[in-house]
Amino acid sequence: MGVLADAARAASLPHFRNGVAADNKAASGFDPVTAADKAAEAAIRALLGEHRPEDGILGEEEDAKPSRSGRTWIVDPIDGTRAFLAGLPSWCILIALVEEAGPVLSVIDQPHIGERFFGSTGAAGRSAHIERGGVRLPLKVRTGRALGEAIGETTDPYLFEGDEAPVFETVRSRARLMRYGLDAYGYAMVAQGGVDFVIESGLKTWDVAALVPVVEGAGGILTDWQGRPAHEGGQVVAAANADLHGELLALLAPAAR
Amino acid sequence: MGVLADAARAASLPHFRNGVAADNKAASGFDPVTAADKAAEAAIRALLGEHRPEDGILGEEEDAKPSRSGRTWIVDPIDGTRAFLAGLPSWCILIALVEEAGPVLSVIDQPHIGERFFGSTGAAGRSAHIERGGVRLPLKVRTGRALGEAIGETTDPYLFEGDEAPVFETVRSRARLMRYGLDAYGYAMVAQGGVDFVIESGLKTWDVAALVPVVEGAGGILTDWQGRPAHEGGQVVAAANADLHGELLALLAPAAR
Repeated sequence: MGVLADAARAASLPHFRNGVAADNKAASGFDPVTAADKAAEAAIRALLGEHRPEDGILGEEEDAKPSRSGRTWIVDPIDGTRAFLAGLPSWCILIALVEEAGPVLSVIDQPHIGERFFGSTGAAGRSAHIERGGVRLPLKVRTGRALGEAIGETTDPYLFEGDEAPVFETVRSRARLMRYGLDAYGYAMVAQGGVDFVIESGLKTWDVAALVPVVEGAGGILTDWQGRPAHEGGQVVAAANADLHGELLALLAPAAR
Repeated sequence: MGVLADAARAASLPHFRNGVAADNKAASGFDPVTAADKAAEAAIRALLGEHRPEDGILGEEEDAKPSRSGRTWIVDPIDGTRAFLAGLPSWCILIALVEEAGPVLSVIDQPHIGERFFGSTGAAGRSAHIERGGVRLPLKVRTGRALGEAIGETTDPYLFEGDEAPVFETVRSRARLMRYGLDAYGYAMVAQGGVDFVIESGLKTWDVAALVPVVEGAGGILTDWQGRPAHEGGQVVAAANADLHGELLALLAPAAR
């Protein structure tokens, strides 16, 4: 898993804050995000093709490769492309190993900061840790905060539409504090213990599969807005503890589908 | 300037992502943000007291020290306390050297990432650069983007009140993309060339004094919503180029004061 993330880092990081390319996009047709996206996914696919030829691969950039082993790797080479475009170090490389029951192992990697969040929810038990600069520390959600004391996050407060908008407004107004724009990094912060919950909608499976083992390995809960498994995407809620998760599900219920 | 930022880094960083302290805040009365704030400002004041005893100091945490030299250091030991609380590495240490005409030298420092943005607008000319891990690179705003192509930022879209709210809504809906929650780091990203503009309101002088040399040293413009110097705080707009700045001033005018 770490080897895959290393390869994707090496392929994507040179394109980050590449101002010349960004300026010339209109003139040259060169798009640094797309270039980084494709290069990172190709690097991961090449390694998996060599070392795990029987496994399936589902990535955002290329066609799905069917699994002959029962295992599939779900890859989002650059999650948070808008952050990447703005030069913000909250975009991430997401890699999840998914078995029949769902994701069992994953990494959320932020190459510029050099932070790598690992999660495991497989047969060996639940755990999560962060690695940076050779130092490895366990990840653990913050406990004991109800919504009124909680720090929440969502990627874009203006993305909620229809009946989701008033529900978001209720959650926002009742939370102690909201943060925005973090994509997968927000879920990593739930595992880290700084953020207490994330609510989002319209996610794809490659946006969310890698989040499940990290959040749950650190002791949190990640489901859809009805409390069902959410690794295939859609409406997602991650919470640091069961009470907060229940409080959020009750508020989200009118817009859950 | 770098020595001051080094001292503030050493004083604040141990408190960041200090989950135990955050959990125990209610019980022990210990607040990791306040502890980091006070420790960082005290470290800067101690160095200035020793090496620049005639200079004034204006900081968020302690009483102002009057200047006997005509020079004053304006310090925000932890800008972005909400990001700090959430474990997000976008909080910054802000240090500005202010002369009669305004800020002439400054640093925006992000200790966790290890990024330090320097700006200069004094007699020696305008310049700005970023230092990280011993590597120093020039900072330059992105040029040639009108509002419809621009990436904008503001710290909290829900902070605009009264006649500011509809004006913000107009800017948001016309920009290509908005980001949120970055405090001073958003202005550093204007200098870096990833973000094209920032609009904010209700800033204090210690929130904004250090932003001016970095943004203007990189070729950008930072004023209040009427186009006047903004280093004393209030309504602030930073833009990567004069055309975009003019476009924003025209939209902000109805709420400018």
